[in-house]
Amino acid sequence: MSEETLSLVLFSGTDDKLNAASVLTVGAAAMGRKVNVFLQYWALDAFRSDRVLKDHGVAPEAGPEGREALQRHGGQHWSELFRQAKEVGDVGIHACSLSMEMFGIAKDDLDPLVDNVEGVASFFLEADGPVTFI
Amino acid sequence: MSEETLSLVLFSGTDDKLNAASVLTVGAAAMGRKVNVFLQYWALDAFRSDRVLKDHGVAPEAGPEGREALQRHGGQHWSELFRQAKEVGDVGIHACSLSMEMFGIAKDDLDPLVDNVEGVASFFLEADGPVTFI
Amino acid sequence: MSEETLSLVLFSGTDDKLNAASVLTVGAAAMGRKVNVFLQYWALDAFRSDRVLKDHGVAPEAGPEGREALQRHGGQHWSELFRQAKEVGDVGIHACSLSMEMFGIAKDDLDPLVDNVEGVASFFLEADGPVTFI
Repeated sequence: MSEETLSLVLFSGTDDKLNAASVLTVGAAAMGRKVNVFLQYWALDAFRSDRVLKDHGVAPEAGPEGREALQRHGGQHWSELFRQAKEVGDVGIHACSLSMEMFGIAKDDLDPLVDNVEGVASFFLEADGPVTFI
Repeated sequence: MSEETLSLVLFSGTDDKLNAASVLTVGAAAMGRKVNVFLQYWALDAFRSDRVLKDHGVAPEAGPEGREALQRHGGQHWSELFRQAKEVGDVGIHACSLSMEMFGIAKDDLDPLVDNVEGVASFFLEADGPVTFI
Repeated sequence: MSEETLSLVLFSGTDDKLNAASVLTVGAAAMGRKVNVFLQYWALDAFRSDRVLKDHGVAPEAGPEGREALQRHGGQHWSELFRQAKEVGDVGIHACSLSMEMFGIAKDDLDPLVDNVEGVASFFLEADGPVTFI
């Protein structure tokens, strides 16, 4: 297995993609990999403390049947999986400063899961390997 | 060129993204790279044996003109390209056990292209490099 | 920081994803990383010289509020950020030959930002590391 940091750029803000991202994060963290998450655009918007538990929709191709399967299956919310990932491993969650400006929000508007606000240059300084875009 | 395994997490279930994924897979396999595919959510749904050849739509930004270009161009179906990739190279296709539970389906419901069902931890054990999310 | 080439496959053609891709490109280039961009499908379509500055929409989850934030914030167009990235660093932008065929277009139809047309095998030959799909 790779010892490389898993660097995830989260862009999409739908619940299905955020859930997939949280499953990858918790899986990598449990395997001992460092995970470095960078929140941009609609993913950042979904991490606002007053929105994190709201319905963020799913990919258009899900259709009614897919959406129903997702709701029926239940399982843990993605925010809860990110919380567990931070407990079991070395997981940092960073908000993109440019996206913060775009939405006109401050660190206090975000869920405590988010560690800090930083620029893309800082993110690349930490990213000692490749980048996965979700 | 890298000797690293190309680890693809397929999430999206539209025909254009599945086609892009199959082109990357066949390209990497032909160059001698090992490819490790992990099927989640709507991509897994598209690999059900009774759905694989159906119309799975395209990205919303395609528009009528893009959709038409895609249909006119024809070319091989993504399932056929994955089949060729498995013939020419070392390509494993794995179904995510969590997504299988979500849809309430079993291995027999999937196209024979899928080798087995496994959890995200097994996927990361095999992923000796970075992860590409599609 | 990694010395690896950042290999980006651009698939999506919405302005928000193209903007995110251009920010990552300019950030990586400014940090001294080589960047290798491969344009497919709707991203390639957005690089046509007569379309590059048009409205390409945003992800469905943006909603009216998100779209408004994006417009209000302004900032530089993604094509301008790619131009700057090419000035400050070692950035190649390549059009996928299969997608060119699909749209029935030639190199002259594309913005001068695009260096050449090549196949997926050439792209993988240059990609000495992993691939980020956007």
